[in-house]
Amino acid sequence: MGVVKARHYDLGVLELESGEKLEDVRIAYETYGGLNKEGTNAILICHSLSGDAHAAGKHRRNSRKHGWYDVAVGPGKTFDTRKYFIVCSNVVGGCKGSTGPSSTNPETGRPYGLDFPIVTVRDMVRAQRKLLDHLGVKKLFAVAGGSLGGMQALQWSLEYPGYVHSVIAIATAAKQYPMGIAFHEIGRQAIQKDPRWKGGDYYGSSRPADGLALARQVGHITYLSQDTLERKFNRNRKNEKPRKKFGVEFEIQSYLQYKGNSFVRRFDANSYLYITHAIDQFDLTEGGAKSLRDAFKDVKSRFLLVSFTSDWLYPPEQVEEIYEGLAEAGAPTTYRKLDLPYGHDAFLVYNNTLGNVLVGFIEREEREYGS
Amino acid sequence: MGVVKARHYDLGVLELESGEKLEDVRIAYETYGGLNKEGTNAILICHSLSGDAHAAGKHRRNSRKHGWYDVAVGPGKTFDTRKYFIVCSNVVGGCKGSTGPSSTNPETGRPYGLDFPIVTVRDMVRAQRKLLDHLGVKKLFAVAGGSLGGMQALQWSLEYPGYVHSVIAIATAAKQYPMGIAFHEIGRQAIQKDPRWKGGDYYGSSRPADGLALARQVGHITYLSQDTLERKFNRNRKNEKPRKKFGVEFEIQSYLQYKGNSFVRRFDANSYLYITHAIDQFDLTEGGAKSLRDAFKDVKSRFLLVSFTSDWLYPPEQVEEIYEGLAEAGAPTTYRKLDLPYGHDAFLVYNNTLGNVLVGFIEREEREYGS
Repeated sequence: MGVVKARHYDLGVLELESGEKLEDVRIAYETYGGLNKEGTNAILICHSLSGDAHAAGKHRRNSRKHGWYDVAVGPGKTFDTRKYFIVCSNVVGGCKGSTGPSSTNPETGRPYGLDFPIVTVRDMVRAQRKLLDHLGVKKLFAVAGGSLGGMQALQWSLEYPGYVHSVIAIATAAKQYPMGIAFHEIGRQAIQKDPRWKGGDYYGSSRPADGLALARQVGHITYLSQDTLERKFNRNRKNEKPRKKFGVEFEIQSYLQYKGNSFVRRFDANSYLYITHAIDQFDLTEGGAKSLRDAFKDVKSRFLLVSFTSDWLYPPEQVEEIYEGLAEAGAPTTYRKLDLPYGHDAFLVYNNTLGNVLVGFIEREEREYGS
Repeated sequence: MGVVKARHYDLGVLELESGEKLEDVRIAYETYGGLNKEGTNAILICHSLSGDAHAAGKHRRNSRKHGWYDVAVGPGKTFDTRKYFIVCSNVVGGCKGSTGPSSTNPETGRPYGLDFPIVTVRDMVRAQRKLLDHLGVKKLFAVAGGSLGGMQALQWSLEYPGYVHSVIAIATAAKQYPMGIAFHEIGRQAIQKDPRWKGGDYYGSSRPADGLALARQVGHITYLSQDTLERKFNRNRKNEKPRKKFGVEFEIQSYLQYKGNSFVRRFDANSYLYITHAIDQFDLTEGGAKSLRDAFKDVKSRFLLVSFTSDWLYPPEQVEEIYEGLAEAGAPTTYRKLDLPYGHDAFLVYNNTLGNVLVGFIEREEREYGS
């Protein structure tokens, strides 16, 4: 993609699902490729828990850091910028340029902290819609995402039925199941019990790095599968003896600590609380009040669902549950269960198996969309 | 079992696998039933991570609290005290009466804390052997345990081949795999990052309750299966609204917090470090230097192995790996994979399916042992 520009859009007031109004909302975003005259060739890519708007390219010519989905977004790539206008934005509640708990509260002139209102996946989607309207997008060719990104993609099809031609939802679920809630709960407690968290009011002093690092490490275990852990780490020991009792002896320990520590440098602990909370609240059946068939009854999109056999955070049965709901609601849906050994993270690990499935769906939908 | 007595044995010096010598070692234990004249009717029950020597009965007549395996140990029960002399002891390194990091270091007159030496599963077994010698046991009819208890049972068959007629190892593994290490690592970090931990030197001041509670909660998630979590908790919400943001909204959150907090009242954080470390070090193949067939080549015991389909801490494949090693080594082994919905904890949840398998094995081995 070459050098790309980080942009933002000040959308004003966002009415939240909670009924609260969030003022002065800024959404960070990037775009790749050009919008056609009709405003109909856009693809929205939704990021997952720790992602951001920087999906492709790099911010400076001599930077080595590419966007998180650079393997799949660009000229001639799966999400082909020669044909499509690709948009990616940071979720509201995040800490990568969009308004979130680390942003300044206009009422106080200080960071929100826990005064930031509760946000939901629907709020994230509504903010994205305002951005797309601002950019002149009349209709989305596709909305795509994995994990939390997949939840957003599904929510899009319910929220704006006529606006979304196709939905690509990977390694995700129609509702967050209790195991996912449980692991998030561990992470949130680790953050809130870190003495540096101070009720969320830590901006300007040292941050709750221990708690956030621990939360991230728990997350990383759930992103890998038992198989991946064995293949990658097995019981391999570090060459050095640990300097102290209960120090690092195995490679898996060192991997987790590295992942935890590097996350702390790039993510805000309060955003971690708000976004994991939004995921845990996600439930298209609204606490069982609706069947999935009912939830999907007004969708007009066409769907691609992908699961991974080695994903135990959102295992195939949870994706198949979406598939059944869509089938019962009569929505045209392709479902693929891929036997990849990367665990939940497979949606981020670009490979031909997933690539071919995506390209196949996009090419077919191009014909469908054009006709 | 009625009222039983907590006992202890001061075994003197224990030479540890590390080469260090641990002085003034006390082992807490209980016995149920009587030893025969020949000293050959004993069954040793090995407890798991958070267990203790109090397997059956109660300590006071009007107590409501029974031992952790009371359902299975007693007159006419699976481990029948009318026939067998049942012994259960607290592991060395523990905090339930046996010498561990919270015990007084005879050199300093203060609690060991992290000056306590590293202990291994083999050290636990060697201490048990000294206890059994002291009690006059000449040969074990059986050694039985689940999880860490199963590791001890397997280690017994290697350490004292002629001494153990039969081994019952449930929901366990021949080595700790990286996912188990990873979850233990989270728990150990949570403890060590708790400011009250103070490098392990917290005795006499407030204890690292937050860290230990978090460690236990991570453990509890791994003891349940995705299925059990769904059946037990699903997305059920608490009746009350949370009093604060990110408070308890779902029953699973409240369950975990309850489990974490109640554990803190009965367990020592440093013992949690030492015992999880012993589990993580456990590897009968010694880092792949041996095959399991080689590891088991001198065993003389007969084995019962049990796995549970819903156990993802020690899933069936890990138990089947033991089975294959034993089969290749020519050891008579019965393996049963039970389709029970309780996750790893199934070894503690008494039920007819597991009960019948245990009774069947014990009855057959009674005839074998007698002949």
